[in-house]
Amino acid sequence: MRYDIAIVGSGPAGLSAAINARIRNKNIILFGSADFSNKLIKAPKVNNYLGFYDITGTELKAQFEKHMNVMDIGVTTERINNIYAMGDYFALMVNEKMYEAKSVIIATGMEYTKPLKGEEEFLGRGVGYCATCDAPLYKGKVVTIIGYNKDAEEEANYVSELTEKLYYVPMYNGNYNLRNNIETIKDRPLEIQGEDRVSKVILRNGELTTDGVFVLKDSVAPNQLVPGLAMENEHIKVDLNMKTNIQGCFAAGDCTGKPYQYMRAAGQGQVAALSAVSYLDLI
Amino acid sequence: MRYDIAIVGSGPAGLSAAINARIRNKNIILFGSADFSNKLIKAPKVNNYLGFYDITGTELKAQFEKHMNVMDIGVTTERINNIYAMGDYFALMVNEKMYEAKSVIIATGMEYTKPLKGEEEFLGRGVGYCATCDAPLYKGKVVTIIGYNKDAEEEANYVSELTEKLYYVPMYNGNYNLRNNIETIKDRPLEIQGEDRVSKVILRNGELTTDGVFVLKDSVAPNQLVPGLAMENEHIKVDLNMKTNIQGCFAAGDCTGKPYQYMRAAGQGQVAALSAVSYLDLI
Ligand SMILES: Cc1cc2nc3c(=O)[nH]c(=O)nc-3n(C[C@H](O)[C@H](O)[C@H](O)COP(=O)(O)OP(=O)(O)OC[C@H]3O[C@@H](n4cnc5c(N)ncnc54)[C@H](O)[C@@H]3O)c2cc1C
Ligand SMILES: Cc1cc2nc3c(=O)[nH]c(=O)nc-3n(C[C@H](O)[C@H](O)[C@H](O)COP(=O)(O)OP(=O)(O)OC[C@H]3O[C@@H](n4cnc5c(N)ncnc54)[C@H](O)[C@@H]3O)c2cc1C
Repeated sequence: MRYDIAIVGSGPAGLSAAINARIRNKNIILFGSADFSNKLIKAPKVNNYLGFYDITGTELKAQFEKHMNVMDIGVTTERINNIYAMGDYFALMVNEKMYEAKSVIIATGMEYTKPLKGEEEFLGRGVGYCATCDAPLYKGKVVTIIGYNKDAEEEANYVSELTEKLYYVPMYNGNYNLRNNIETIKDRPLEIQGEDRVSKVILRNGELTTDGVFVLKDSVAPNQLVPGLAMENEHIKVDLNMKTNIQGCFAAGDCTGKPYQYMRAAGQGQVAALSAVSYLDLI
Repeated sequence: MRYDIAIVGSGPAGLSAAINARIRNKNIILFGSADFSNKLIKAPKVNNYLGFYDITGTELKAQFEKHMNVMDIGVTTERINNIYAMGDYFALMVNEKMYEAKSVIIATGMEYTKPLKGEEEFLGRGVGYCATCDAPLYKGKVVTIIGYNKDAEEEANYVSELTEKLYYVPMYNGNYNLRNNIETIKDRPLEIQGEDRVSKVILRNGELTTDGVFVLKDSVAPNQLVPGLAMENEHIKVDLNMKTNIQGCFAAGDCTGKPYQYMRAAGQGQVAALSAVSYLDLI
């Protein structure tokens, strides 16, 4: 099954893209979270979305949800690890699974999590963002996973099948759904250290000796998600039609730049979808 | 009185710009029509504005109106004839009146009216778009006004104070509120003719001998509205921040390009407003 358009991200940008693509009768798949977007449900009061006034983010989300339901568009709650441009289609990787689509819209929002001290320095030298992708490298070794959300638990469980030892450092509260062979470390990571490669993680109250560290955040940088994607500063480089440098790959919302706002995101999502539709008509 | 931001046009782009500028505590004036936009109230069914589904254009307009009312933003129902960049401010001309603003957002939508045969050829050689501006040139002469909407009647009345003879050719139905010295011609103009300059208007059932012709449409080309404004094909040239080539002048909505859609227009209006706010912080 090859989709016409895969939309990655279920914030206002992704939802608007999905609606517009569906109206144009495209066969779409929308990846994201069941709550659509944390940045949506957490807004205390929204006044700048034309047509709605004095509304909470949760209320706005409920309006969006109604719209999606009536149009029968669901969210596939899977996290895309990597997107590869294969020439005439895109391969979207979810751990062991793969999805195919003729075009892609990146609407993954903007990651505000600051990198840990040492994280960027050791990236590719023991630090990674996709534990499942790199797991084979750590067979029989010690790995530390710093998880920013529940999705990271699944990755940790999978990786722990191979490793000698797996430490899980959760950056959130809740119940952790982890295998027995995983050691949960309830402490705050301060720094990643090493010489040539990573050798330890410094915590507020101790340290972990480790061969690799995976930092699993809400979103990774777009050019990590899509190898070869051109960036401008920390955002995806787009033109006014929301085209990126990769044919068939479009982007919308916070990931394309400031100002970070719902209306801008939704407007760009619409444009990205209609540009993807035009692209599909040509190929 | 010098406004911080003058917004020209009251479609979704202009309304969204107004809301966002007001939230940032800017002193704004919004020009447009009481109905906001014909393209809004005439839409039979809107499904692609995220958050509203299966709604008529009139219903969507009512939602926008509520939003504007709660924020206490009114529309100044005057038509801007010309906008001049004066260096540190803009002069916005409404017939004899002038408004001043430190920055301007053009959100005038897209004119679909095709030019008449000969209209572009004789532009500046007897054909004009602002009757009140050029009226002094036609003192004691014969002028024809081709009016596409009721606003044109006011201009016709004003100009008829100076001219020897004024023909008014209405392109719409209704009651015409015109002075007695104006002759209403209920016929369809086909072509504007002349040699060096305009000499007559050919109608389906006759012709008018005339020294000048004013074509008063719903909107004029943006680079006629704002002399010096850079265009790309038939649209205003903007960057991703909705900046035009003129410092302090921003644009949003259909006038900046396709696709012509509400959500795109509203998103761009937001970005234009926030860019204008940044600009004001700098000057
Ligand atoms: C507390 C708060 C209040 C705010 N208040 C306002 C306000 O009043 N008005 C306003 O206009 N803006 C407000 N904002 C800003 C606004 O939330 C953002 O601009 C907007 O959400 C951006 O939309 P988006 O669709 O680009 O991205 P997001 O809303 O961030 O959505 C991105 C989505 O993509 C998903 N995703 C990321 N990577 C992947 C992947 N690899 N696979 C699958 N899914 C992925 C994420 O989980 C998320 O669901 C507020 C933000 C916050 C944090
Ligand atoms: C019948 C119809 C149905 C449509 N249906 C849909 C739909 O379902 N979904 C969708 O997304 N889009 C739809 N559209 C397209 C949509 O209407 C436009 O894209 C949208 O209105 C553009 O908004 P805007 O703010 O850029 O301009 P407009 O809505 O065109 O508003 C421009 C405003 O500027 C005013 N103006 C112009 N010049 C001046 C001046 N010199 N001085 C003062 N005021 C001025 C005009 O009077 C007008 O009020 C439809 C259009 C039509 C005609």
